[in-house]
Amino acid sequence: MAPLKLILPHILKRFSSTSSITIKPTPSKAHHHQPIPSLSFPHGYLLTGIHTGIKKSPLVPDLALILSTSQHPTSAAACFTRNAFKAAPVLVSQEVLEKSGGRVRAVVVSSGCANAVTGKKGLEDAWAMVRETDALLDPKAKLNKDGGNETLVMSTGVIGQTLPIAKIISGIQSQVQTTHTLGSDFDAWERAAKAFMTTDTFPKLRARKFVIRGKEYRMAGMDKGAGMIHPDMGPMASTTGSSGASGLHATLLGCILTDAAVSPRSLQSALMYAVERSFNSISVDGDMSTNDTIIVLANGAAGAGAIDEESDRESYEIFKQELTAFAADLAKLVVRDGEGATKFVTVTVNGAPSYADAHKIASRISTSALVKTALYGEDANWGRILASTGCVALSTPLNPSLVSVSFVPSDGSSALPVLVDGEPEDVDEARAKEILQEEEFEVRVELGLGAESATYWTCDFSYEYVRINGDYRS
Amino acid sequence: MAPLKLILPHILKRFSSTSSITIKPTPSKAHHHQPIPSLSFPHGYLLTGIHTGIKKSPLVPDLALILSTSQHPTSAAACFTRNAFKAAPVLVSQEVLEKSGGRVRAVVVSSGCANAVTGKKGLEDAWAMVRETDALLDPKAKLNKDGGNETLVMSTGVIGQTLPIAKIISGIQSQVQTTHTLGSDFDAWERAAKAFMTTDTFPKLRARKFVIRGKEYRMAGMDKGAGMIHPDMGPMASTTGSSGASGLHATLLGCILTDAAVSPRSLQSALMYAVERSFNSISVDGDMSTNDTIIVLANGAAGAGAIDEESDRESYEIFKQELTAFAADLAKLVVRDGEGATKFVTVTVNGAPSYADAHKIASRISTSALVKTALYGEDANWGRILASTGCVALSTPLNPSLVSVSFVPSDGSSALPVLVDGEPEDVDEARAKEILQEEEFEVRVELGLGAESATYWTCDFSYEYVRINGDYRS
Repeated sequence: MAPLKLILPHILKRFSSTSSITIKPTPSKAHHHQPIPSLSFPHGYLLTGIHTGIKKSPLVPDLALILSTSQHPTSAAACFTRNAFKAAPVLVSQEVLEKSGGRVRAVVVSSGCANAVTGKKGLEDAWAMVRETDALLDPKAKLNKDGGNETLVMSTGVIGQTLPIAKIISGIQSQVQTTHTLGSDFDAWERAAKAFMTTDTFPKLRARKFVIRGKEYRMAGMDKGAGMIHPDMGPMASTTGSSGASGLHATLLGCILTDAAVSPRSLQSALMYAVERSFNSISVDGDMSTNDTIIVLANGAAGAGAIDEESDRESYEIFKQELTAFAADLAKLVVRDGEGATKFVTVTVNGAPSYADAHKIASRISTSALVKTALYGEDANWGRILASTGCVALSTPLNPSLVSVSFVPSDGSSALPVLVDGEPEDVDEARAKEILQEEEFEVRVELGLGAESATYWTCDFSYEYVRINGDYRS
Repeated sequence: MAPLKLILPHILKRFSSTSSITIKPTPSKAHHHQPIPSLSFPHGYLLTGIHTGIKKSPLVPDLALILSTSQHPTSAAACFTRNAFKAAPVLVSQEVLEKSGGRVRAVVVSSGCANAVTGKKGLEDAWAMVRETDALLDPKAKLNKDGGNETLVMSTGVIGQTLPIAKIISGIQSQVQTTHTLGSDFDAWERAAKAFMTTDTFPKLRARKFVIRGKEYRMAGMDKGAGMIHPDMGPMASTTGSSGASGLHATLLGCILTDAAVSPRSLQSALMYAVERSFNSISVDGDMSTNDTIIVLANGAAGAGAIDEESDRESYEIFKQELTAFAADLAKLVVRDGEGATKFVTVTVNGAPSYADAHKIASRISTSALVKTALYGEDANWGRILASTGCVALSTPLNPSLVSVSFVPSDGSSALPVLVDGEPEDVDEARAKEILQEEEFEVRVELGLGAESATYWTCDFSYEYVRINGDYRS
């Protein structure tokens, strides 16, 4: 065990004259994006990703459009960052969602500019994006006859600069021409996913099928994010007053689309449950962005009655679990693409008195700089894990003599206990090295206090992370 | 402003093939340790630092002894880590302090081994250190005639291994011989300070004089710490059950000695106030150790009645402010010596509705990986500062349009506002570079919500930090 080594070599390292270091290359993550059969995608959606001119290169899409074409009512739900500095698109989407009563049919997403700390102009621009996208929707399927908006808006990118709104508007308007690029096949979904990207190294797109009461439904979605990732999103989190907003260049944005019919209220409650166990359970660098937004649309295009928690609890529960598993798949892609990440680590906390307790400890371990540098160094440093565990205030006090820690390989071979009931194990060094050298493994903490568990996904802290975020100007 | 740059170069950096980077050398910090005139030290203390064999090199001291020789009653107070995994010396010191009613005359400190996760043996060893040090004290000055212990114990170093207790005992016993090294001059204080060190690059020793009601007193002390620094210490924080303890190699330990007389209760209350505004307001890496301990002794050797909050509020307030300023001086030394630190940054939050609110925001900014890598990159990235500010839950909601951020140079020249009332300034790039290139500067955040302020001290996040903590095994 490294912690058992004498401390002197560690001290000497601080006086080392080394001024150049060789960094481990960040593994390529391109293989996490693969073609998906077009039949897997939910029915009744048209998508595209186009270049409007927010980003410089004409080859890079910077605007995604997602439209529901279903003749059934489309429900929407969303979770927004709890950060007090909410960017203009967050404030606008909150207002649209609230006024529409959860009946929204489109999502417009811009990347390259976060439209944050942009004052009144920023709000006007976000509203313009909403109105222009509304105009793409079939007016016959409108539920709300009084002209209410039906589009939610998300933006990600640099802050403090306003959107090139004229370019964006003409980009959106281009989609009413016969030359529009809206489609429903894999290429269209992929174009949309690519238009979400900023510092991401691969587009993040997934699809799955699920069955409720014998009926098959589809769910697909995309997200983005690589840095400033430690979301804490809730439904209509209180907005603190004024319009001065702020955001950053690497927000978490996600959009999930299904052809199931779900009542707006049940869709929101399922999303909140899912987000807590997916996007709110990941961390790249512990920093919560000001633009984080997750949107789900349910357009009923598969045909069948609306799923509702009150009228059919069982169907609702199945839907909620499907949504949660799917959201977790999307969330994990963000951690895999974490800035500078060389490891994908699952942190599981078991035996907690409550889910909230387990979640707090998992979050603390997942954000500890000392734990994350140890993961980078492939060092089975249980001491740092214990220190993080112990600094969280819980509903029931921790009993150190009940706490166990193990490292679990991802290949299904047996776990390596490093601390059992508060006592350090005589660890097999070679086996520890074997597990921690892998790109993926699990850190498992058992508290011995109850029956609740939580899972978090995190990555390591590397030289590359410092290079990306510290050599920003170079 | 860097955040205004187009994002594309940032994306390209993620694909860069660079595999070797040149790191900025960490500046030498040796100049922070200077000789102090022996007359500056408080009267009535004997100190030494000796090598007992915990550390390998016979030239490196690993045990400090601090004895009060005052014939007046000596008061003691302490703050201990709130971590649930408390190391054996923390548990033992808490018990001694409680049973003694705040009447303690000695402190024994070992470095190189934290005596943590060492079970019953660890507790026995910590008690043995207490008893052996008790034996060095003048029995005639004993207040407590029933044989109660009068020594507090602290340890820092690696975890999971037991102390070489026989060597430590013979080291302590060597101090009753005529060849003892106990003394009261600068050399003796410096020896003690050196025996606190683990990964520290310089001994941390300071002294000051102060006057209360025309009477002059002295205060001196030492501390240590360079990594795993984000203390949260309270008085007798609840101990969670069992003896299984844990610690790490780079804890915060500190000891402050004064020749004023202070009642035990007032000493504890002054220390709690001081620690909140000093040691609990620093962060190197956001990780709270399991051994963090700050002890203060007040031995009355200067002569004069005991300072007490109830009987003389004014004298008590002066003492409290002196203790707070002195504790802040010691705390700042730890940040200056932060692992891999190239910057010493003061984070001030003004205009908060309460001190606790201001402190929470200052703490969040001071621990943000994105803020700290930006400090390393000398990037005036106010967006990251805002994002950190906005993710803290406050007693009064933030109003983004009232928030201002500026960078304040340490040379007294004028501050550089980067955000004023929620609106980004047109920043003078050259001036920003000038300020952020310095080793020391201040980040000042104005909330516009109230009259309360808090100050935090932090450092940057460098390649060197990753090297020290990630290349642990190399």
